[in-house]
Amino acid sequence: MSLPVEKTDIDLYPSRNGHPAVILSRTDPVVYNRNADQSPVDYELIQQYEKNGFLVLDNVFTADEINSFKLEMKRLRKFTGAINSNEMIVEPESGEVRSIFKVHETSFIFNKLSLDKRLAGLAEFILNDQVYIHQSRLNYKPGFRGKEFYWHSDFETWHVEDGMPCMRALSMSITLTDNDHYNGPLMLIPGSHDDFVVCSGKTPKDNFKESLKKQTYGVPSDKNLKSLVDQYGIFTATGKAGSVVIFDCNTMHGSNGNITPFPRSNIFLVYNAVKNRVVEPYSNQQARPEWIASRESINPITAVECQSVDYE
Amino acid sequence: MSLPVEKTDIDLYPSRNGHPAVILSRTDPVVYNRNADQSPVDYELIQQYEKNGFLVLDNVFTADEINSFKLEMKRLRKFTGAINSNEMIVEPESGEVRSIFKVHETSFIFNKLSLDKRLAGLAEFILNDQVYIHQSRLNYKPGFRGKEFYWHSDFETWHVEDGMPCMRALSMSITLTDNDHYNGPLMLIPGSHDDFVVCSGKTPKDNFKESLKKQTYGVPSDKNLKSLVDQYGIFTATGKAGSVVIFDCNTMHGSNGNITPFPRSNIFLVYNAVKNRVVEPYSNQQARPEWIASRESINPITAVECQSVDYE
Repeated sequence: MSLPVEKTDIDLYPSRNGHPAVILSRTDPVVYNRNADQSPVDYELIQQYEKNGFLVLDNVFTADEINSFKLEMKRLRKFTGAINSNEMIVEPESGEVRSIFKVHETSFIFNKLSLDKRLAGLAEFILNDQVYIHQSRLNYKPGFRGKEFYWHSDFETWHVEDGMPCMRALSMSITLTDNDHYNGPLMLIPGSHDDFVVCSGKTPKDNFKESLKKQTYGVPSDKNLKSLVDQYGIFTATGKAGSVVIFDCNTMHGSNGNITPFPRSNIFLVYNAVKNRVVEPYSNQQARPEWIASRESINPITAVECQSVDYE
Repeated sequence: MSLPVEKTDIDLYPSRNGHPAVILSRTDPVVYNRNADQSPVDYELIQQYEKNGFLVLDNVFTADEINSFKLEMKRLRKFTGAINSNEMIVEPESGEVRSIFKVHETSFIFNKLSLDKRLAGLAEFILNDQVYIHQSRLNYKPGFRGKEFYWHSDFETWHVEDGMPCMRALSMSITLTDNDHYNGPLMLIPGSHDDFVVCSGKTPKDNFKESLKKQTYGVPSDKNLKSLVDQYGIFTATGKAGSVVIFDCNTMHGSNGNITPFPRSNIFLVYNAVKNRVVEPYSNQQARPEWIASRESINPITAVECQSVDYE
């Protein structure tokens, strides 16, 4: 297996480095495996994913499984003392726990989930490689005073701040709560994954300490965002708990705040192709810590057939 | 015409005065005219309004009329120098103009709109009295970084801060933009107008200077809000420009922030029954200024039949 270990000479996706805030074309594929027969899901769904940059699969997990995940989330949010406080993000105003990182390593159940063939098998197919978890996190957007998360492409950050070379990674969001229009659901711009939106500004030192609460750098200009939305529109990922939203690393997404009493939570797993393992950041900053972006823990996953009973 | 000019001895709607944050029953009617024959709209709509505390009427204004209103809004937002800066509210972060008050007095077109029989005639029927404008404002929620507006009952503020004795007032929101699920549309709790949610805390001096940007006092407790939503649910007022949302002064409402590029704007007119003119505030504070709450300018409206041509 030949692994890139150094930055490429030419940066195809320059951002936050003085380059004008233009929109560039993607040069990487979206779906890396062209063999429909090998697809673990209906190949039309794969084509949808390729076109839109995301796919929503309903009822992937049973009510029992979701229940186990929720219990585990409750446990983790409660016993926060056991978790390195660096790995937790709290809401700026209320102090409530908003995200817990690295749950695929710190929780037995979420570790199993990261290996679950329903997820890992699909990631392997789309990326046509062995995969590992680049980042995992439990997101909890509180009711009443849940803050917005501004539009961004994850890849932009992972490239600039983590050194992810190419667009050969994807995220899976497993919803633990019903997502309605009014409680700040994930919004995605279909088709935006085919464009790379160069962001202006320089990345400040230790930017992640702020950006995980409120992203200020690595966000599109108003003009570029408007141009994407005018061209592609906005899709809102509403649906019942237990669905999975799979989205390409470069799909522009964000979410509004939430003043309703209904919290919104999900488990977020980022699968990266082993061939796309991170190198030095595409900036002059130090790489982000291991708990945000795997650099050492990149053992390829062996996908496992899981059932409800495995999560009890 | 006998007008109440003093506070009543017993405050039926105590709030922000040390009273526990409980939910009391409304003692006032919602629809004051029981004569269906006199209704200017289908009486079933009036019954809907009575039950839910609001009513959405689509296509009340033509595209030409909405266009005139938008041009007038643009003019007012641009020539802000002509407006007393007290009467304008800007977004805390961006400094963009968010609201302009008293437009029924400062704009010829919006003055005419406040007299338009389609609005004023309906207000007269529901309140069964002559009416006047208690407050008018142009709301502009910018795209990209539009802030949320937390849940509140307008009556709670108008009672405590302005001295409005009873629930005999209503608001009309004339939408100037399409309201979609994702650009922070008005959310209402159907049925909440039948309850009075007592708020805790004391009103700080000159509270309006902050509360018009971000409401901190006069908002329901999390527990009371949850109880209302559990009982009644949430209605989201989406729809095309040109619709009118009519809602009772005591209907609990709010709106999420808006990170989409689409601004959201409306004209907001509050009709109060002349018999319900304001007295001294139900607090120990000074009354809010005239531009937020009419105290002197309470001449009854004479409703006028208007057509597109009147707004040109």
